[in-house]
Amino acid sequence: MKKLNIGILGPGTVGGGAYEILTKNHDLIQKRTGVSLQVVKILTRRSRPDLPADLLTDDPDDILNNPDVDVVVETIGGIQPAASFMLQAMNHGKHVVTANKAAVAAEYRELTKTAAQNNVKFLFEASVGGGIPVLTSIEGALSGNNFLEVMGIVNGTTNYILTKMTEEGSDYSEVLKDAQEKGFAEADPTSDVEGIDAANKLCILMALLFDKYVAPSEIPTTGISKITGADIASAASEGCKIKLIAHAALKNGQVVCSVAPERIPDSHPLAGVSNEFNAVYITGDMVGEVMLYGKGAGALPTGSAIVGDIISIAKEL
Amino acid sequence: MKKLNIGILGPGTVGGGAYEILTKNHDLIQKRTGVSLQVVKILTRRSRPDLPADLLTDDPDDILNNPDVDVVVETIGGIQPAASFMLQAMNHGKHVVTANKAAVAAEYRELTKTAAQNNVKFLFEASVGGGIPVLTSIEGALSGNNFLEVMGIVNGTTNYILTKMTEEGSDYSEVLKDAQEKGFAEADPTSDVEGIDAANKLCILMALLFDKYVAPSEIPTTGISKITGADIASAASEGCKIKLIAHAALKNGQVVCSVAPERIPDSHPLAGVSNEFNAVYITGDMVGEVMLYGKGAGALPTGSAIVGDIISIAKEL
Repeated sequence: MKKLNIGILGPGTVGGGAYEILTKNHDLIQKRTGVSLQVVKILTRRSRPDLPADLLTDDPDDILNNPDVDVVVETIGGIQPAASFMLQAMNHGKHVVTANKAAVAAEYRELTKTAAQNNVKFLFEASVGGGIPVLTSIEGALSGNNFLEVMGIVNGTTNYILTKMTEEGSDYSEVLKDAQEKGFAEADPTSDVEGIDAANKLCILMALLFDKYVAPSEIPTTGISKITGADIASAASEGCKIKLIAHAALKNGQVVCSVAPERIPDSHPLAGVSNEFNAVYITGDMVGEVMLYGKGAGALPTGSAIVGDIISIAKEL
Repeated sequence: MKKLNIGILGPGTVGGGAYEILTKNHDLIQKRTGVSLQVVKILTRRSRPDLPADLLTDDPDDILNNPDVDVVVETIGGIQPAASFMLQAMNHGKHVVTANKAAVAAEYRELTKTAAQNNVKFLFEASVGGGIPVLTSIEGALSGNNFLEVMGIVNGTTNYILTKMTEEGSDYSEVLKDAQEKGFAEADPTSDVEGIDAANKLCILMALLFDKYVAPSEIPTTGISKITGADIASAASEGCKIKLIAHAALKNGQVVCSVAPERIPDSHPLAGVSNEFNAVYITGDMVGEVMLYGKGAGALPTGSAIVGDIISIAKEL
């Protein structure tokens, strides 16, 4: 039986979800791929009595420079040291799989270049739309298309808040507080509600769809913190819902992009994407409109995308 | 520059669409893959002054037994001779890509076995949901999941008819006539309206999702020809839409399946799938619910899926 050995950097929500899937569905995946996926090391600085003690280490080198590790899963989050760890892993000949949109967006060119130089895979399906098969579809089944436009609801926190404001007629601050209590929003919600998280994801989408890198800080970005109940009522009176849209389109050969609240007609498929769900609506010159919908966050949905990326590496063994 | 040579069996709607994409987007695809995709032979029994004369042949052997052909695209439709042609191509060491749901469903086991024996690719993304990335997602990004359920709107003709009956309050026979005039329904609509086409697609979905082959004739199948305006009004009064659903689920370890009109609550994402659009709603144990939506038929959407499959072969060169 072929084996693929995995090291996980950061067994938090997403890394822990990936570990759970690799453990619970090990036999199923082995049957499908003919490869046994084994987690051999986990980097954490915390006490984790829920994980096997012999797998834990607090030294990054035990994974990044470990000849037994074939694939490094990076789920630390944040730009640094995550990006440096990924580069080190690639330079040691290891494939890298990550869910880290901030690091992928910020260091996209360096990470893809280093992966190519080392002839290793660098896969990040989990970084956009959680468990939804977005990036692999763009690079796979849809890749015969010249892409024309993308509109994404790619942040679950803001979509949850806007949905509740629409359904309940409540104010922004009231719904944000409720979302924080329910765990749908962080204590400091800035990255979500000001559109920064969505801009990171749009940067990654544009790189794959249009072969064009636009740094997240260069994307015109407006969040939802100034949306009022009156705005939502006004949109509703015109048969529209307000959604935070990560939007990019080819216009006269140029890519035009923004993250901003937009009025989406009720008849548009994106208008029906509610609560914490995400969806990416892509237009190609041949396929027309395609929408990919599902859970954009959470341990198991995002872990599912990480495991899908690992399986694609296993299938090439 | 690497080359991949393609022979097309049957340049009708779908085969013609694939040819158009391979021609119009040739340079884009070459840039993305590093491979030049070249159509070198086209099998047709008709006069086709719109296609290059030097590519045309009326002898299947000019493709099936041609050492210059690497990939055979089968878009003849129907079970025979399409299935025999695909088997011959595989036995001559050629990869096979098809949109032919009837042949894939009827001869699934023989086709997949023969592909494995000859170590060639057998890809059929275009056979379910046209241009929507359904099968590649099941076998790719979602493949770490134990699949629990699938609900598909996989026939555009019936979805168009049900949508018009719902929107206009018209009778089945009236809308069918209109659909036939507009080209959304065949002169003999039996395969669509009686659910046979949807059963073929459900057979393929079950084989990939549950590793279980159920012949289309074994799937309990009810079409839409007996749905009345009163049925639709009754569903609407309960906040539901009637959709023809290809449905399979694991129940106590057994796969239970059917093709039948079902009442779908307006709040469910499948209720918003209108007109000729298709969608496949999949539940996995880890990812939860995912919906993949787009155009399920037509020359360019279905051609897009065929070209996506060819590109996946090109990337492995």
